[in-house]
Amino acid sequence: MIRFGIIGAGRIGQVHARSIFQHPEAKLVAISDPVIEAAQKLADQYDAKAVTEAPDIFNNEDIDAVIVCSPTPLHVTHISEGVKAGKAVLCEKPIAMDSEAVATLEDELEGFNPRVMLGFNRRFDPNFSHIHNLVDQGHIGDVEQLTIISRDPAAPPKEYIAVSGGIFKDMTIHDFDMARFFLGEITEVTAIGQNLDPDLADTGDFDAAIIVLKNADGKVATIVNSRHCASGYDQRLEAFGPKGALFADNVRATTVRSSTADYTEAQQPYLDFFLERYESAYYNELDTFIRAIEGEGSFAPSIHDGIAALKIAEAAGESAKSGGPVSL
Amino acid sequence: MIRFGIIGAGRIGQVHARSIFQHPEAKLVAISDPVIEAAQKLADQYDAKAVTEAPDIFNNEDIDAVIVCSPTPLHVTHISEGVKAGKAVLCEKPIAMDSEAVATLEDELEGFNPRVMLGFNRRFDPNFSHIHNLVDQGHIGDVEQLTIISRDPAAPPKEYIAVSGGIFKDMTIHDFDMARFFLGEITEVTAIGQNLDPDLADTGDFDAAIIVLKNADGKVATIVNSRHCASGYDQRLEAFGPKGALFADNVRATTVRSSTADYTEAQQPYLDFFLERYESAYYNELDTFIRAIEGEGSFAPSIHDGIAALKIAEAAGESAKSGGPVSL
Amino acid sequence: MIRFGIIGAGRIGQVHARSIFQHPEAKLVAISDPVIEAAQKLADQYDAKAVTEAPDIFNNEDIDAVIVCSPTPLHVTHISEGVKAGKAVLCEKPIAMDSEAVATLEDELEGFNPRVMLGFNRRFDPNFSHIHNLVDQGHIGDVEQLTIISRDPAAPPKEYIAVSGGIFKDMTIHDFDMARFFLGEITEVTAIGQNLDPDLADTGDFDAAIIVLKNADGKVATIVNSRHCASGYDQRLEAFGPKGALFADNVRATTVRSSTADYTEAQQPYLDFFLERYESAYYNELDTFIRAIEGEGSFAPSIHDGIAALKIAEAAGESAKSGGPVSL
Amino acid sequence: MIRFGIIGAGRIGQVHARSIFQHPEAKLVAISDPVIEAAQKLADQYDAKAVTEAPDIFNNEDIDAVIVCSPTPLHVTHISEGVKAGKAVLCEKPIAMDSEAVATLEDELEGFNPRVMLGFNRRFDPNFSHIHNLVDQGHIGDVEQLTIISRDPAAPPKEYIAVSGGIFKDMTIHDFDMARFFLGEITEVTAIGQNLDPDLADTGDFDAAIIVLKNADGKVATIVNSRHCASGYDQRLEAFGPKGALFADNVRATTVRSSTADYTEAQQPYLDFFLERYESAYYNELDTFIRAIEGEGSFAPSIHDGIAALKIAEAAGESAKSGGPVSL
Repeated sequence: MIRFGIIGAGRIGQVHARSIFQHPEAKLVAISDPVIEAAQKLADQYDAKAVTEAPDIFNNEDIDAVIVCSPTPLHVTHISEGVKAGKAVLCEKPIAMDSEAVATLEDELEGFNPRVMLGFNRRFDPNFSHIHNLVDQGHIGDVEQLTIISRDPAAPPKEYIAVSGGIFKDMTIHDFDMARFFLGEITEVTAIGQNLDPDLADTGDFDAAIIVLKNADGKVATIVNSRHCASGYDQRLEAFGPKGALFADNVRATTVRSSTADYTEAQQPYLDFFLERYESAYYNELDTFIRAIEGEGSFAPSIHDGIAALKIAEAAGESAKSGGPVSL
Repeated sequence: MIRFGIIGAGRIGQVHARSIFQHPEAKLVAISDPVIEAAQKLADQYDAKAVTEAPDIFNNEDIDAVIVCSPTPLHVTHISEGVKAGKAVLCEKPIAMDSEAVATLEDELEGFNPRVMLGFNRRFDPNFSHIHNLVDQGHIGDVEQLTIISRDPAAPPKEYIAVSGGIFKDMTIHDFDMARFFLGEITEVTAIGQNLDPDLADTGDFDAAIIVLKNADGKVATIVNSRHCASGYDQRLEAFGPKGALFADNVRATTVRSSTADYTEAQQPYLDFFLERYESAYYNELDTFIRAIEGEGSFAPSIHDGIAALKIAEAAGESAKSGGPVSL
Repeated sequence: MIRFGIIGAGRIGQVHARSIFQHPEAKLVAISDPVIEAAQKLADQYDAKAVTEAPDIFNNEDIDAVIVCSPTPLHVTHISEGVKAGKAVLCEKPIAMDSEAVATLEDELEGFNPRVMLGFNRRFDPNFSHIHNLVDQGHIGDVEQLTIISRDPAAPPKEYIAVSGGIFKDMTIHDFDMARFFLGEITEVTAIGQNLDPDLADTGDFDAAIIVLKNADGKVATIVNSRHCASGYDQRLEAFGPKGALFADNVRATTVRSSTADYTEAQQPYLDFFLERYESAYYNELDTFIRAIEGEGSFAPSIHDGIAALKIAEAAGESAKSGGPVSL
Repeated sequence: MIRFGIIGAGRIGQVHARSIFQHPEAKLVAISDPVIEAAQKLADQYDAKAVTEAPDIFNNEDIDAVIVCSPTPLHVTHISEGVKAGKAVLCEKPIAMDSEAVATLEDELEGFNPRVMLGFNRRFDPNFSHIHNLVDQGHIGDVEQLTIISRDPAAPPKEYIAVSGGIFKDMTIHDFDMARFFLGEITEVTAIGQNLDPDLADTGDFDAAIIVLKNADGKVATIVNSRHCASGYDQRLEAFGPKGALFADNVRATTVRSSTADYTEAQQPYLDFFLERYESAYYNELDTFIRAIEGEGSFAPSIHDGIAALKIAEAAGESAKSGGPVSL
């Protein structure tokens, strides 16, 4: 039984609390949040303890592993403190607001045998991971062209965009990791930004984008992003190789199809909410983390994966502004 | 080049005239119809000759093959006259209004080396014939359960129903042949009729039905019929065997799928009109007939197939009334 | 919080124990099983108490509701004892081995305000219940033809068949309830049995069947059953009405489609195991039961539904033997 | 009845000859080809006249319209001569090898009331044109992101690549026109080339590419190209707007789906050959041309469309080499 602490009682902290509850080998011990009411509410729900300070989690000897759900600017500190306190750490994405902030983290943790995993939950989505397995088995040969359609159902509040680091860091970061999951290290980034939604015009951020990533072998990933999608959370992936192709379709609530005089076999909208869409991904992520703690498999995605995705995001921002490919 | 005559310038005669026009090895020579205007109109369209009397077709030495599109009660006579005149004959379904009318036809034609093919066009539909080929290749093992969904877009005029012989002879006859195409001779028929459409209540005929056919090996075909279908001409087939299953889906005008806030990947209604839905089936049927005339392959489906389907239709009528299985 | 006892620690008892564990308003208090090791194992897993005798469950004042997972011949007794002890009872299907055994149950329980629900879990499957909701909303008009394809991945052990009451009681019973869910009371049953699997020839039972059910309005349900299916647990339903049709497709582990040189967009086999396939159905069933206990909604499906499905199963057996429709 | 001449008896000339044969309002009068045997063979097939010189077509008073299927470097000359001879001209794509060659064509033809249509057949594909119609009807709002997957089943011979002008001119040219069909004039092109096939390494051409086009409104088209695709001719399009999305799936020979123990609902490979895949597109293109000649509708796509697509192809080549966006 792995005993967990959670730093941050916000939406994503709640997701992890629920996964811990459902996992037979996991137990939630304590939650910290500066807003004690938030921590207390979650603690009550799962019979855990609420604290205000993160160190109270790290110093708790009854806790084996910590899930860092604090605001992004605190991630590096919390990873570092967690590792130094001997905890296994699962940290939410992105690892930091910019790569400078994280430049020295790996060095700093050297010697501590860091057991850190980054919360790129989509690697654990049953659809994407099944495709990854089939690729590993040689089903389509080497992936030559990866195409990711990734659209949010609706734009986040402007206040969020103001502090999130922008579309490449708050949204595409997942797709950058997915590209790396399939293609390995990325060497070149070309990004074309779009401003489609007049309501978001004054954010100074793009609300849609096309990004093309290339690895050293010349294989590419094309990412199509938008901050809105009328049909729901549009999350598809297509891996193309010399022997075939693999497609992950969107997820719907049921398999029901409906026919009338006007149309046939219409399906339901896509699942709308990321927690619902990726519910099993979060659970599988936790399960992988637990198994790594127990010595089966590694802590992957790692700090390195977190940094690499962040650097791609920075390069994408630069490319979208300068108008040309940016090398990594 | 096979030179054709057509008996009957109605809707189905027009279909065959068009197939002949499109076939590089076929030429239309003459069309007969008691309504000379109808014959003339079709003749003009394809540079052929119009006559009023069927014998003028049979006695025309410039004609190699005849397509019989006359009213059903005349089919037996026209087959017989055509064969005796040395023509190859393709006759529309059903072969007769009742099996008595056709009881002596095979005997009568003995000695004439009859080259007769019955117009069960659906055997030549690319979807159904592809499934038949895969079954022949052992893809799913022996067919254990065949399920046919066969619904017309809308009921025919009541005047048609009054003379058509009823749903089992005018509509299900195709499905009976399809069942025989996959299961061979049928030994037992159970039919359950339905009266759903109040407008058709006074026809004395069913407007929907479920029919279960069984062959000597205990394999079954289940047919689901309706005289209406809001989404178009609903024509599906599913062959199930110990090693797998094969499905023929409906045919649509395009592959387009449409997503909105309310639904996703809605397809178009099914093709509505039988001539459009089975256009390639009619062409392939003609092509098979021509190849049989040229000595490649046999004249199949045959007179026997026409009679066998008719007997199943009669048994179905009996079963639906008496309420139990009828043996053949 | 509803406190539960479970009678029977077999496979289906385990399913319910797990649903109780996952439900935030449910708590498992005790499990009874004559094989105490089985009860103990399950009890340990969920921090509950193990007993050997069912009465120890019924007499336990810390228990509000009982789930009856005992062998079918004991269901009536356990329902009766549960109700008389003041418990809410959720009883697995079928309600009894024959309708005689249950003939007096409703009378017997009169005056006890029985809070009994029958475990026809498929009504709670998200796909089927979504179709039911759309039908209720008038999406396709009245259901005129319901078509259920229901095939098990593989036949159960012969020993099971020997005591199960046969295919109509152990397997089709679910489909009979589904037909009633959509069409209401069934008035006529026609069943055609098949013996396809030589290994099951000596069971004296059919291993496949087609059953046609009719209600008083002439609406029909057609059920296609088989004890085997190479592609997995084949569970589909199609509701057809004057304004359209609704389809529930099979459930797969992922949305992944695979294309090669030989085929395109191949999907995975259907989920194979009933517990996996109907996992959310079992959970939703429990949730409905809990809500009924709490006064929201009714205890449905009811004892009456259990008896009605059983009577259809008996009529189907009679029809398959006698060869004709059996009225109810 | 429109009387046609064809310049060039190669593969694409044969396609048009066949469409003319099938069209009730078209008649093929003569075919020219320097290889008289090729012209003669096609002429014999359709009862037309064979000549070696293009002017014999242009000067033929029995000819109303000319389809130019000569080698690309001759297109401009043949368009010009055809127009000056008073013929309506349908010219195959691309309009020229480079935009310089065509720079003065529009000026040159001023005053001649040129009736010229460019053979961008894909605009007439039933799938793509249906989506275009739905977009025009406002089904999804303005197209914000168009995504085109366009892969050939196999690379052409190297000799072809050596003279074709390269992937952007011989293959993507169709996709550039499709982008313009949906987005109008393109103002910026970013292309990322790939070299995946070692056999094609010495052609000096890319064998795969990602191209992103932008219009003045900031709407984008993303094109994913490859010279090979194991599953056949991969031709898909997705139009995304604020109110929904429209998808054109690949075309297969049948609707058949196949299930086994290993996979379910596998479809057939995509149609492999462009003539088969776009058969109805070529027919519809001819029909549009005929209707324009008869005064219904305009000659579109026009010379301007041919030049615009060519300029995008040139810009794409420049971008792929220089590594940055190229403005138009």
